[in-house]
Amino acid sequence: MPKVTVHRKAHFNAAHRLYRKDWSDEKNLAVFGKCSNPNYHGHNYELIVAVTGEVDSETGYVYDLGKLKKLIFSEVEEAFDHKNLNVEVAEFKELNPTAENISIVIYNKLRIHIPSNLELEVTLYETPRNFVNYKGE
Amino acid sequence: MPKVTVHRKAHFNAAHRLYRKDWSDEKNLAVFGKCSNPNYHGHNYELIVAVTGEVDSETGYVYDLGKLKKLIFSEVEEAFDHKNLNVEVAEFKELNPTAENISIVIYNKLRIHIPSNLELEVTLYETPRNFVNYKGE
Amino acid sequence: MPKVTVHRKAHFNAAHRLYRKDWSDEKNLAVFGKCSNPNYHGHNYELIVAVTGEVDSETGYVYDLGKLKKLIFSEVEEAFDHKNLNVEVAEFKELNPTAENISIVIYNKLRIHIPSNLELEVTLYETPRNFVNYKGE
Amino acid sequence: MPKVTVHRKAHFNAAHRLYRKDWSDEKNLAVFGKCSNPNYHGHNYELIVAVTGEVDSETGYVYDLGKLKKLIFSEVEEAFDHKNLNVEVAEFKELNPTAENISIVIYNKLRIHIPSNLELEVTLYETPRNFVNYKGE
Amino acid sequence: MPKVTVHRKAHFNAAHRLYRKDWSDEKNLAVFGKCSNPNYHGHNYELIVAVTGEVDSETGYVYDLGKLKKLIFSEVEEAFDHKNLNVEVAEFKELNPTAENISIVIYNKLRIHIPSNLELEVTLYETPRNFVNYKGE
Amino acid sequence: MPKVTVHRKAHFNAAHRLYRKDWSDEKNLAVFGKCSNPNYHGHNYELIVAVTGEVDSETGYVYDLGKLKKLIFSEVEEAFDHKNLNVEVAEFKELNPTAENISIVIYNKLRIHIPSNLELEVTLYETPRNFVNYKGE
Repeated sequence: MPKVTVHRKAHFNAAHRLYRKDWSDEKNLAVFGKCSNPNYHGHNYELIVAVTGEVDSETGYVYDLGKLKKLIFSEVEEAFDHKNLNVEVAEFKELNPTAENISIVIYNKLRIHIPSNLELEVTLYETPRNFVNYKGE
Repeated sequence: MPKVTVHRKAHFNAAHRLYRKDWSDEKNLAVFGKCSNPNYHGHNYELIVAVTGEVDSETGYVYDLGKLKKLIFSEVEEAFDHKNLNVEVAEFKELNPTAENISIVIYNKLRIHIPSNLELEVTLYETPRNFVNYKGE
Repeated sequence: MPKVTVHRKAHFNAAHRLYRKDWSDEKNLAVFGKCSNPNYHGHNYELIVAVTGEVDSETGYVYDLGKLKKLIFSEVEEAFDHKNLNVEVAEFKELNPTAENISIVIYNKLRIHIPSNLELEVTLYETPRNFVNYKGE
Repeated sequence: MPKVTVHRKAHFNAAHRLYRKDWSDEKNLAVFGKCSNPNYHGHNYELIVAVTGEVDSETGYVYDLGKLKKLIFSEVEEAFDHKNLNVEVAEFKELNPTAENISIVIYNKLRIHIPSNLELEVTLYETPRNFVNYKGE
Repeated sequence: MPKVTVHRKAHFNAAHRLYRKDWSDEKNLAVFGKCSNPNYHGHNYELIVAVTGEVDSETGYVYDLGKLKKLIFSEVEEAFDHKNLNVEVAEFKELNPTAENISIVIYNKLRIHIPSNLELEVTLYETPRNFVNYKGE
Repeated sequence: MPKVTVHRKAHFNAAHRLYRKDWSDEKNLAVFGKCSNPNYHGHNYELIVAVTGEVDSETGYVYDLGKLKKLIFSEVEEAFDHKNLNVEVAEFKELNPTAENISIVIYNKLRIHIPSNLELEVTLYETPRNFVNYKGE
């Protein structure tokens, strides 16, 4: 059967700061610039989740996008939307919430719910000008 | 010669419904939800066609995008635009017009017109939030 | 108090055809072109609802956008999304569903729920290239 | 001379929360929902500043957009970008940073630098789906 | 009858430079900056034409958008697309092709073809960040 | 360590024409159409630069996007913005400035500044409807 990639877009708003607890404020500022502001700043994150696999000959679907929408809602939007990522999201208590790390955390949260014969890729826009992809490699 | 991918965007508007004739209305509703509405609904489909190959050293082109524009017009837009996909497009008489299947049909229609040394990929947006890719694998 | 306009974006997908029952197919085709296809075509309609009024000095709100989101959902999305406008939406049984007429119907449905001291404007994108505004004048 | 409106787009990222200090957490939650999260959330604000006036017959400009870009940078971006609006921006120490109030603050900051014969309008996108306009009325 | 505004989007690509023949290169550079480059630079201009009037009770149209599309094509796209505005477009032989002046020229070219009971407005994006409106006032 | 791709968007405006000096005007017109206009036309080029590599376990970065922004500014924007590519940019003195060739030139200019363990990809939008990718293969 032909292999197709299906994509679903979602979004969440959150506050964060980039820093390491084991570094001084000066070092955090030197490495992360204004993104290390101790009072936080925030973003409208735009998320695209892509699932690749063979098209089911009966339904014509790779993976029901309505199901994917609900999965993204329960695993990502409910957990991250209108939250302070550093303070309120367990995964970032000890992990710097860079776009790279957020995309890996989202991938791992979704991966366990997607059948293993399907490939998964996460694209995360931190701003319309800065974005990242992760596909589990 | 270096290999480059060139992309051309196009669009068409169409009505469709998702369903299988051999299923009951109840089963179609259970599997395809409101997309199985027997009275149809519709979309502004956005299409991106990508062609990959070596850059011609004389022209600096991989494949003339003006030519690609015309090919998309004659093969896709004339066939699908302002149509009811289920009723008026031969390929979907017996094939469920999911985004996955539409992208495969478009790929197959274009593939025979693009030289075989060039790779082809079709991206189809059913809505700004739902889209698919197919590259003939 | 200063007057501000607040806007909320929403969307729905629907099938429609443009025609008058009292005209022949030929006349409908001459006036409405391929939009009069008797088998219907469809669109991803993007809707922007704007409400203008004084900023409440206590809340800093003109009109709660969460409330507006719910109002648009119950009045417009539930009524129009994944529907055939000509067949399934009462307002268009005898009214041609041009973008102009759809925007007027949406305005009238929302107007009765928005306090009369607030101005209302409806913007409706039929495609990314064709759109209309109506503000009740 | 003909009157034209010229627009310049800019953006800044910031954290905020919606709340009144003189209200209980319960009341803030009831009125502002998840936007009142005490740990803050954030947005990529997109800003459009519009200036209307007669076209200068010598230059063909209403107001030099390069000059407007610099003014927005010094008055808005330097003050708001990568900041916590409630904590670090003086104007919001006692004023709830709703999109409405932020647009009024930006308008007032810019107004004093724009010649009084020119009209000013501020459009602020808090998210791609929620936005406001203020023109000093 | 209710009054609605209908909009049609179009685009053209062109080269231009901003300068006055009667000024020195130094003065042109001081006033117009890098936009006065004597070798030209260019833009993808995006154009939105808006027509306001009463909805025709028979057709449900204010002004046929297919007709407006053709009018924009013949009056604007054929005249400006892939052209050097300063060198090849008669209107800019003695007029500085600022976005303001281009919008006025487009307005005037279209105005004579649109019935006088309909209002006309032209919006021209020179870049996604710089744009202007003109409505004949 | 997981591999992530980070992307940064930038833009520049430029004039160009497509042609070969060793071809007649007739042949250039036959091959390149209106893009061969001897008086030039122009575009708002949108550029996306993507860098792929392992996430640094200390910073959570693949490659600092602030550093990438500065690199794009110094290597691409300063060299190309508001320029005539054929006349003023050394790389196109003898090379036809098709989107394909521009993307290869940008890739080569950036490649020498990006550590060799990181992969690089350049996406260049000539218009919102025509764009290309190059990744050094």
